[in-house]
Amino acid sequence: MQKIVQKFGGTSVGTIDKIKHVCSLINKEIKSGNQVAVVSSAMSGETNKLVSLAENFDINKNKLEFDMIVSTGEQVSIALISMALKEIGLKGVPLLGWQVPITGSNDFTKAKIDNIDDSLVVDLMSKGKIPIIAGFQGINTKNNIVTFGRGGSDTSAVAIAAAIRADRCDIYTDVDGIYTSDPRIVKNARKLNKISYEEMLEFASLGAKVLQTRSVEMAMRHEVIVQVLSSQTGEKGTFLTKEDKKMENELVSGIAYSKDEANITLINILDKPGVATKIFSPLSEANINVDMIVQTGSENGKNINFTYTVSRKDLEQTISIMEENKTDIEFERIITNNSLAKVSIVGLGMRTHTGVANKMFSSLASESINIHVISTSEIKISVLVDEEYIEKALNALHSTFKLDKK
Amino acid sequence: MQKIVQKFGGTSVGTIDKIKHVCSLINKEIKSGNQVAVVSSAMSGETNKLVSLAENFDINKNKLEFDMIVSTGEQVSIALISMALKEIGLKGVPLLGWQVPITGSNDFTKAKIDNIDDSLVVDLMSKGKIPIIAGFQGINTKNNIVTFGRGGSDTSAVAIAAAIRADRCDIYTDVDGIYTSDPRIVKNARKLNKISYEEMLEFASLGAKVLQTRSVEMAMRHEVIVQVLSSQTGEKGTFLTKEDKKMENELVSGIAYSKDEANITLINILDKPGVATKIFSPLSEANINVDMIVQTGSENGKNINFTYTVSRKDLEQTISIMEENKTDIEFERIITNNSLAKVSIVGLGMRTHTGVANKMFSSLASESINIHVISTSEIKISVLVDEEYIEKALNALHSTFKLDKK
Repeated sequence: MQKIVQKFGGTSVGTIDKIKHVCSLINKEIKSGNQVAVVSSAMSGETNKLVSLAENFDINKNKLEFDMIVSTGEQVSIALISMALKEIGLKGVPLLGWQVPITGSNDFTKAKIDNIDDSLVVDLMSKGKIPIIAGFQGINTKNNIVTFGRGGSDTSAVAIAAAIRADRCDIYTDVDGIYTSDPRIVKNARKLNKISYEEMLEFASLGAKVLQTRSVEMAMRHEVIVQVLSSQTGEKGTFLTKEDKKMENELVSGIAYSKDEANITLINILDKPGVATKIFSPLSEANINVDMIVQTGSENGKNINFTYTVSRKDLEQTISIMEENKTDIEFERIITNNSLAKVSIVGLGMRTHTGVANKMFSSLASESINIHVISTSEIKISVLVDEEYIEKALNALHSTFKLDKK
Repeated sequence: MQKIVQKFGGTSVGTIDKIKHVCSLINKEIKSGNQVAVVSSAMSGETNKLVSLAENFDINKNKLEFDMIVSTGEQVSIALISMALKEIGLKGVPLLGWQVPITGSNDFTKAKIDNIDDSLVVDLMSKGKIPIIAGFQGINTKNNIVTFGRGGSDTSAVAIAAAIRADRCDIYTDVDGIYTSDPRIVKNARKLNKISYEEMLEFASLGAKVLQTRSVEMAMRHEVIVQVLSSQTGEKGTFLTKEDKKMENELVSGIAYSKDEANITLINILDKPGVATKIFSPLSEANINVDMIVQTGSENGKNINFTYTVSRKDLEQTISIMEENKTDIEFERIITNNSLAKVSIVGLGMRTHTGVANKMFSSLASESINIHVISTSEIKISVLVDEEYIEKALNALHSTFKLDKK
């Protein structure tokens, strides 16, 4: 007997028929003698509808209300799953965030999960019942509904798997696993059987939409074994696990890209201690996620330029925050660009192999693709290029790093 | 300073513009120096949509899930009202049933309100904030969401008004008050300025859709002053109050009708003590509301016929419950009819005046309308006639009892 968390995304529960199909996937686990907890997103399209309705007003001034509205999507889907389970003789118990309870921080619209009370869920499972938990939502200490940000249901699922010490957390989506690159763009892209948490974390951060970054962080921290698989086929997908020796052999595991990049450069900042804090504190307070940060070296005391990227949706707010803090940060002017894309190669092997960066740059150069910004981590190299070159860049790199071969 | 509960129905909050208009009605009370608590239904059409979604499954087996789904409608509308209030500088606090909390019985889909914790609501109001409470919903002692039946938001509003000892409970609807009869059918129908709880109770029970019966019962029990008025005009409507002397002068206050009648006759029951209990206990257990009950007298020990009416939607279930209990009840066979309509005259004056019933019967006879079943109470006389005669019957009675004259 294993404890399994099965998480279903919006497209997997998008219609009544799909919900019934999902129930057959649940039944399969139950018939194998496993205990199951289900986590579900809202039916596909529903969250968007609710967001549109809420957007008749200024969301930034109405975050409590926003969370109250968008959390209704999951409330509907979990109840429908429970009904469909009953039809095939299984006993589901739909549970909202406040009923579990799942306690989150006070940051409406992007709360962090602070605690999950596992007692009710574990108790139901031990009695052969199937808790069906609303993803994406919890309550804060003031008894208000909070949500965990777009894709937050993945984080809910992994957090629940960690809380109940599940043997596996299966994330059912509309793709059948993690690929070396986007198969819609790179025709030789190949499904990975395994990927390390660290690599997946980079992929998720880099815009691979399969899993929310925070869900991967959480899986890594609690060593939850996560499987990404297709709800259509239910066939074996890609497993996220701790790094093992075999993986070391692969130089680069995959290539990710993101079109959601907005680039901000602050021109002529006097280079003195504390300037980075002055730039990023107000952004952090506004809960704006900063991605790449690039500061070129300078002789002491000379003026420097400072570049960073944010989500395109946050660009406007970021600019106004910078303008508000202009005298404090002491910059001359702002340059922005939101027609850039980020292309990244990821691989644990980079840590022990040299020359990976150069191989990447020369591959792009041979296609005459100009690189605007470079940023590296231990297991990842990202570059910003003009958005129009994405397809060219991905295919060139996929072939350079021989990702189409096992 | 008065404490006012303002309740808005689905059509009053059916669009963003209507929600903004509703906020101007709230603002008007606040500007008059009053403290306000708001209760809202779901946006019109939303509850029906949610019900249709749930009806993909057997609701009778999924009542917990049903309530979880349909209660989301109010969750959305109260959050939108809060957003709209903020735009005009008012501070609303949207509250779900479990947040107040409003505690209900365990009868999913038609729970009764057991208790309302008034502390949070009163506290918010005293601080100049406006609690915006989801109508129709509460939680039971097992922490599950329960709903109060169709139109339950009226009951929520009156119960909250009673709990916080409000000076008035304004029920905003799409009509501007209570009429002597349906103005769509009787062209001389006249709006009443006042109506007693007792009369309103009869009207509500008799199918006048303006207020849910239970809300009137609750208003009567707690002596809550209720005003029914139009959210479009906001002009003075009809007040529900304790009976006063003036009212006594009016023989009949109004004429109601209902097309939702299904008639069941049990043929050839052996007349012995306890037969009524045998018939109605199982219906009561199934939460089926029985309306008219008619048993003609018989010589002791002789076989009798027993007639009662239920909502048309409950007819099928009622028949199968009767069949299940056939040997216990000991009847020969069932006759049913669901093309009947109920026409009722209501008036406190009936208690002290004789001849009202006869006046009613002769009025109908003069129009050649055949009466199938008669049932009377102290302040009401109801008859079942063929559905096709409704219009004729209402107009005849309206003129017989001179309701078009003040």
